[in-house]
Amino acid sequence: MTQRVLIAGAWRDADAPAGTFRAVDPATGEETGPAFPTSSVADVEACLAAGAAAAVALADVHPARVAAFLDDYAARVDADAPRLAALAARETGLPVEPRLLRVEIPRTTGQLRQAAEAARTWSFAHPIIDTRAGLRSCFGPLAKPVLVLGPGNFPFAFNAAAGGDFAAALAARNPVIAKAHPGHPATSQALAEHAAAAIGAAELPPATLQLVYDVPAAVGLALAGDARLGAIAFTGSRRGGLALKAAADAAGVAIYLEMSSINPVFLLPGAVAERGDAIAEELAASCTLGAGQFCTNPGLVALVDGPAAERFVAETARRFAAAPPGVLLGRGVRDGLEASLAELTGVGARVVAGGRRPDGPGFRFSPTLLATSGRTFLSRRAALQREAFGPASLLVLAADADELAAIAAALEGNLTSAIYSASDGRDEDLYRAVARALRARAGRLLDDKMPTGVAVSPAMAHGGPYPATAHPGATSVGIPAAIRRFVALHGYDHVRDAHLPPVLRDRNPGDVWRSIDGRWTKEDVS
Amino acid sequence: MTQRVLIAGAWRDADAPAGTFRAVDPATGEETGPAFPTSSVADVEACLAAGAAAAVALADVHPARVAAFLDDYAARVDADAPRLAALAARETGLPVEPRLLRVEIPRTTGQLRQAAEAARTWSFAHPIIDTRAGLRSCFGPLAKPVLVLGPGNFPFAFNAAAGGDFAAALAARNPVIAKAHPGHPATSQALAEHAAAAIGAAELPPATLQLVYDVPAAVGLALAGDARLGAIAFTGSRRGGLALKAAADAAGVAIYLEMSSINPVFLLPGAVAERGDAIAEELAASCTLGAGQFCTNPGLVALVDGPAAERFVAETARRFAAAPPGVLLGRGVRDGLEASLAELTGVGARVVAGGRRPDGPGFRFSPTLLATSGRTFLSRRAALQREAFGPASLLVLAADADELAAIAAALEGNLTSAIYSASDGRDEDLYRAVARALRARAGRLLDDKMPTGVAVSPAMAHGGPYPATAHPGATSVGIPAAIRRFVALHGYDHVRDAHLPPVLRDRNPGDVWRSIDGRWTKEDVS
Repeated sequence: MTQRVLIAGAWRDADAPAGTFRAVDPATGEETGPAFPTSSVADVEACLAAGAAAAVALADVHPARVAAFLDDYAARVDADAPRLAALAARETGLPVEPRLLRVEIPRTTGQLRQAAEAARTWSFAHPIIDTRAGLRSCFGPLAKPVLVLGPGNFPFAFNAAAGGDFAAALAARNPVIAKAHPGHPATSQALAEHAAAAIGAAELPPATLQLVYDVPAAVGLALAGDARLGAIAFTGSRRGGLALKAAADAAGVAIYLEMSSINPVFLLPGAVAERGDAIAEELAASCTLGAGQFCTNPGLVALVDGPAAERFVAETARRFAAAPPGVLLGRGVRDGLEASLAELTGVGARVVAGGRRPDGPGFRFSPTLLATSGRTFLSRRAALQREAFGPASLLVLAADADELAAIAAALEGNLTSAIYSASDGRDEDLYRAVARALRARAGRLLDDKMPTGVAVSPAMAHGGPYPATAHPGATSVGIPAAIRRFVALHGYDHVRDAHLPPVLRDRNPGDVWRSIDGRWTKEDVS
Repeated sequence: MTQRVLIAGAWRDADAPAGTFRAVDPATGEETGPAFPTSSVADVEACLAAGAAAAVALADVHPARVAAFLDDYAARVDADAPRLAALAARETGLPVEPRLLRVEIPRTTGQLRQAAEAARTWSFAHPIIDTRAGLRSCFGPLAKPVLVLGPGNFPFAFNAAAGGDFAAALAARNPVIAKAHPGHPATSQALAEHAAAAIGAAELPPATLQLVYDVPAAVGLALAGDARLGAIAFTGSRRGGLALKAAADAAGVAIYLEMSSINPVFLLPGAVAERGDAIAEELAASCTLGAGQFCTNPGLVALVDGPAAERFVAETARRFAAAPPGVLLGRGVRDGLEASLAELTGVGARVVAGGRRPDGPGFRFSPTLLATSGRTFLSRRAALQREAFGPASLLVLAADADELAAIAAALEGNLTSAIYSASDGRDEDLYRAVARALRARAGRLLDDKMPTGVAVSPAMAHGGPYPATAHPGATSVGIPAAIRRFVALHGYDHVRDAHLPPVLRDRNPGDVWRSIDGRWTKEDVS
């Protein structure tokens, strides 16, 4: 029996002339679970119509009710965590323990609760009051639905129906139209069932969340280019992201993309000399964790050639070679990884470890370490910055410190950049040169640390310059900053107190930080 | 002698195969001042190359030095105000007194000084510190130049080389490539001369400001679509803005547009009954001020038909008819106004007052009041929302309160929306219905007040939903919010204190508001 989509508050049969699909267990390569529909433009049209109406209604709801919904949703997911983790493990190949059950689900429900807290304390609203000018402003709902397209690599934390973008859009009281990743349809469905129950319990508009599992590419572009949308959040490939961006841009719809990143790591000579083996261990662990399927995987590691670097390369290669081939998310990830590695080796990278598809069922690939010279990298910089999504990293061996700095200055926009430097200060001049170049090219800079951990913190920057994302000032992780992608700036000019939203009235609605005449305070307007 | 462009810190001959142009005094229709060049792609290329290098250098400059530059620039403009005002008056037809000398120049230098203060106190940087997670973030420079294209109607306050966008881009330490409005080239040149002197005095990179006066349309689009730009700010027509947006979007360049707005004003029945004559006076004053050439001109006024409305229409018409035809900014504005009025009357609006071009020299037009029924408006809503830039307003007479609310819900995105309601509370139900619709469709809501005053306040929202602008969360007026269009989010993950920018170090660099572990404070990190 074909599964149903969630539209306008009801689980209903999809309009699916393009047919159905089933999830594939990447450990075996066999189909698993029931058939899910590929929705037509009629389903999408129904989502847009119901979403537009829900957006108007939701903008009028008190944030405390949305906060209650988010908390309730989190509680329902936590209570069902073992079943959900098992479902996701079958669809994604990611392990139940510790990844799904101990890390990703707690992170996901933690995000929902942080979003609830942001709604409750109005922290996303950034209220500014100028008593002398009679002006007040805050961020408010878009009053239009947000389309969220989730990636394959985080079935919970970035799920279109439960993840960070969902939580952020909801915290600002925007309904979500979720386009699930077709790699884990049953997981997405199970999450949406909990969301729908919580929506009902909170008496929010039924179309606060809608869910389709898959759409043909042309339908997806028509959806992204519909001016009834308030915004779009997409995490995935650069090719897919740029196609959606073109459609959204033409319609004047704000779009936030997280597309691709090779997350360069620079190892300065003093650090390699001081603790090269330990860094090799960190790199191998970071690059093979979750089979390297993170947007913050360290995909490029640059260092100055020489005896210490040679030892570092050998130590890293040994660890890569010893690591078992992980199960990848699916056939597409494996084929994409193989295509990227072929392109990289075709333009001057050589294989130092791994580089092969093991025998046996399912979709696996050996952790792969590539290497090239700084000179080759600089002469083929575009091709050698191709992302190889999975357990792979390219070492770039610079001839000297100047070439290392030139490599930093040749990079495209990335989510992160890390610099390892000596603890005794001998790398400081080179640090400054490299950091200056990397600062302009990455959202998050790290010292002496691999980039794969992304904490959900108000100070997190999970974004970066184009083409890593579509907006250098935004982040998709971290509350309240991530919420501020999905808001409109609401100004009030000599508006009577009773006509203002609670957060801007003279009386503080309760423990809310507001900037009043240039001073951040929780006091009332006097 | 053809005037010189400012590129890479030098006043030099333009590459101008497309020729030259002269400003036109709109009071006489005669050319005035010297010949200015229309720059080629070679000039633009030189600006981009020098701007890219200056951006890297400027990102490393301490904000206090940029603040000193902005203050110095403001002082130089103030000291030269009488000459500058006379120059602008000749090029724009705007009066020296009070407009240019007493209002617009002080506002412009005030903006420069507010931007200096924002740089000095890091208020634009929004520093967030999470000591437990080891994460810190702030906004920083784009490290790429910002292209500013100024409009014709504010030769100082929105001038590409001195106005709000310039001040905002500079406060975040981004160099500016200014494309002056060809309506006031000599004014722009004179401002840039002061800026260049102040840049030299502050020893900022010479290409901190570059200036061209005009480019062919194809060159402008090539410039807007160049990935070396960090961002673009444009104020002007919807047609021009959308063409630039398409070019910028394709290159992944963030673009902020202020395109068009009819700034609907809703007069609820109680307010019309209570103080209709006073509102008629306010409307006529607001719509004829500066010959109506404001982006916040009240271009649509909706009210419920009936005896009080009839009196209001007559009182407003009397005032419009009595107001002298103002001098418009130029031939383009007059021709555009006539074309818009012809379109509006062609789809059901009738002329109640004005509507004619007076005899005599120069570019003038009589203040024009149009009217139509709510039913006609709703049936031809797209055509009847065409902006008629200049001293013109369309009255929409609704059959009843429900139709009035339906008109509000039929509007496109606008910069502002105003509601006049009775002081005794009798309009409150209708207020809620109308305000709900308008809130989703405008950046700034006003109570009992015409929209033409735009105060430079931290709480100002001078933006709005597409197609009024290109981003509902942004504002082009108000500091520090306007600066935040031209920043990148800079995250730091376990970065050593000495490697952090001053604003994120443990020690507060001086009187800076920072959010430390969820609390806004000026304290050091303990």
